[in-house]
Amino acid sequence: MKISRIGKEIPPFIVMDILERAQELERQGENIIHLEVGEPDFETPKCIRKRALDALKKGITHYTHSLGTYSLRCEIAKYYNDKYKLSVKIKPENVIVTSGTSPALFLIFGAILDRNDEVIISNPHYPCYPNFVKFLGGKPKFVFVREEEGFQLNPQKVKESVTKKTKAILINSPANPTGNLLSPEWMEEIASFGTPVISDEIYHGLVYKGEAQSILEFAEIGRELIVLNGFSKLFAMTGWRLGYIIATEDLIRPIQKMIQNFFISPNAFVQEAAIAALNECEKETEEMRKIYDERRKFMIERLREIGFGITVEPTGAFYVFANAKKFTNDSYKFAFEILEKAKVGVTPGIDFGSGGEGYIRFSYANSLDNIEEGLARIERFLAR
Amino acid sequence: MKISRIGKEIPPFIVMDILERAQELERQGENIIHLEVGEPDFETPKCIRKRALDALKKGITHYTHSLGTYSLRCEIAKYYNDKYKLSVKIKPENVIVTSGTSPALFLIFGAILDRNDEVIISNPHYPCYPNFVKFLGGKPKFVFVREEEGFQLNPQKVKESVTKKTKAILINSPANPTGNLLSPEWMEEIASFGTPVISDEIYHGLVYKGEAQSILEFAEIGRELIVLNGFSKLFAMTGWRLGYIIATEDLIRPIQKMIQNFFISPNAFVQEAAIAALNECEKETEEMRKIYDERRKFMIERLREIGFGITVEPTGAFYVFANAKKFTNDSYKFAFEILEKAKVGVTPGIDFGSGGEGYIRFSYANSLDNIEEGLARIERFLAR
Repeated sequence: MKISRIGKEIPPFIVMDILERAQELERQGENIIHLEVGEPDFETPKCIRKRALDALKKGITHYTHSLGTYSLRCEIAKYYNDKYKLSVKIKPENVIVTSGTSPALFLIFGAILDRNDEVIISNPHYPCYPNFVKFLGGKPKFVFVREEEGFQLNPQKVKESVTKKTKAILINSPANPTGNLLSPEWMEEIASFGTPVISDEIYHGLVYKGEAQSILEFAEIGRELIVLNGFSKLFAMTGWRLGYIIATEDLIRPIQKMIQNFFISPNAFVQEAAIAALNECEKETEEMRKIYDERRKFMIERLREIGFGITVEPTGAFYVFANAKKFTNDSYKFAFEILEKAKVGVTPGIDFGSGGEGYIRFSYANSLDNIEEGLARIERFLAR
Repeated sequence: MKISRIGKEIPPFIVMDILERAQELERQGENIIHLEVGEPDFETPKCIRKRALDALKKGITHYTHSLGTYSLRCEIAKYYNDKYKLSVKIKPENVIVTSGTSPALFLIFGAILDRNDEVIISNPHYPCYPNFVKFLGGKPKFVFVREEEGFQLNPQKVKESVTKKTKAILINSPANPTGNLLSPEWMEEIASFGTPVISDEIYHGLVYKGEAQSILEFAEIGRELIVLNGFSKLFAMTGWRLGYIIATEDLIRPIQKMIQNFFISPNAFVQEAAIAALNECEKETEEMRKIYDERRKFMIERLREIGFGITVEPTGAFYVFANAKKFTNDSYKFAFEILEKAKVGVTPGIDFGSGGEGYIRFSYANSLDNIEEGLARIERFLAR
């Protein structure tokens, strides 16, 4: 079959290649410790699963409204209104429920990007960001975030990158892969440029020092601020596939039309379960947060002992983006070496863009025991 | 916000507009009978729901392999190998599980369409087909299927439409909106052209006379035959969002990369439930099929009595595509009149392309009582 240009060119997720090689080794009987995966190791809290069970028993198994059930859209609006200091309150009409956070970003870009339009993205960044933009004919424009600047997206550099073609600035705080929060002052400054800002808030709630701001808190000074969020990370619901968009009303209809055509609606009973997630499991998410924090502290300390550079303490998400330049300038090769020889899965910095070269991302979405063992293996490997 | 060209131009699903207007009327206290919806009225069979409940209890709530769980891919391969006379057996490696049949089609087109590539599509057709193609920069090329030819996709006309730019012929049997099956001889002829064929087999199993052939039965004479299917219709699982692709191996990796980027994986526990669907609910699907058949016969008879033209008896899916030219040459206006005045939702033929103008699609995915009442209302309305 003749494959399309896009089908040929779209890059895979390198971390998936690592994961799949790791699984191959496991099938051969090897014991592998997974510090590469960006997925909570916890099971979804019981109250959420219970609500899904009830919905299934009740027969909530049909298509829903293409924008999601009105009840869930109300709950998401309420959740944002309660959690953040919003001068402009969110209405259910601003909310779109999607089959995951990834499709949500696809829909946002689909609604705003024309050919050759630019989107400003940090480098390093979540690997898929530029692939969305390129798939839709747009151009990612990278702003480097440097360790020396605390991996912060510098507003001055962002401003310098804005052109007539810039359709949006994409921010992500807490960030994947760096685990860092953008300072409120810099977020405010970025919002003030008047360029649309898409804020990926998927790691909100997973914050261990300070607080994550929503871009919507700057609605008075910004305009066209779009939130991307979902249930995967905070609520340990990766396998459920549910996300959402909060956007200004002019974006709703174009996105709805795309959903009607390409998705029809999100899963019906998963939407029911999401209502429980927003209302009934604060205790469970707080427990998970505390456990992540414990692992985070341990991991940072041990990685420093082993010789990795961590000048900026990551305080959000569940990642440590460690400087490995002392050991390598080829993070891809290094990550596979660690996998093959130390039997530990880690993600090479290069997966996150050229700005990530020389770094390794360690995920602490794994038990303290596994983290301890995994880092001990890496220590022994490096000592050889 | 400046909306992209695609965001502006992509058409909505007209049937959704009808449905949403119907729901508005219902909120105002009106009783509306829904014969517009392409969705089984049945609840998902218990054995399927039970498997989902078990999976949820077991904590199967994490990401799966991007192509779907290997166990489900095996079951889908087995299902096709058992159900159809395949000279080339399907391997699990040919199967990709997706978050619905709509995203599946999006992925197939994404993997094969370059700018200005053409896809041959029947007219009338499922409304979204051309929108997928156009979104990806391709061009739909329509072949009219005429009532006088039994709404059959004529291979000769298909052949005449093939150009150097043609990347695929899209077929759909049983078809939406006509409810007709493509004859084995004509399907074979279309497969023999050497142009890739994408076969949307979502209505397979919902057949009341004869049998639906899979395009894969012609693998010896055809090449690059791709199947699109899912669990929504036969298993009454619309709200679950699960579909699949069966394709030649060269297509798997490009599609997988798109999934990794834009979807990550399908829902984990829904994939478990799908295994039960394929193995444990033949009795339930057979019962549903019998009930549909009863409704089908009733609906055809009554529509003829009322004065609609049905020269070709629809024998698949759950639609009757009735000639309404006696009443109107503006099916859109007519459908809204029927909704507003007779309080019955129906789908205008124009929703399915210019070839559908003058027709109305009636769905019998509703109870016999409701169908009876709905058609009586329409009869009274037309008698005025």
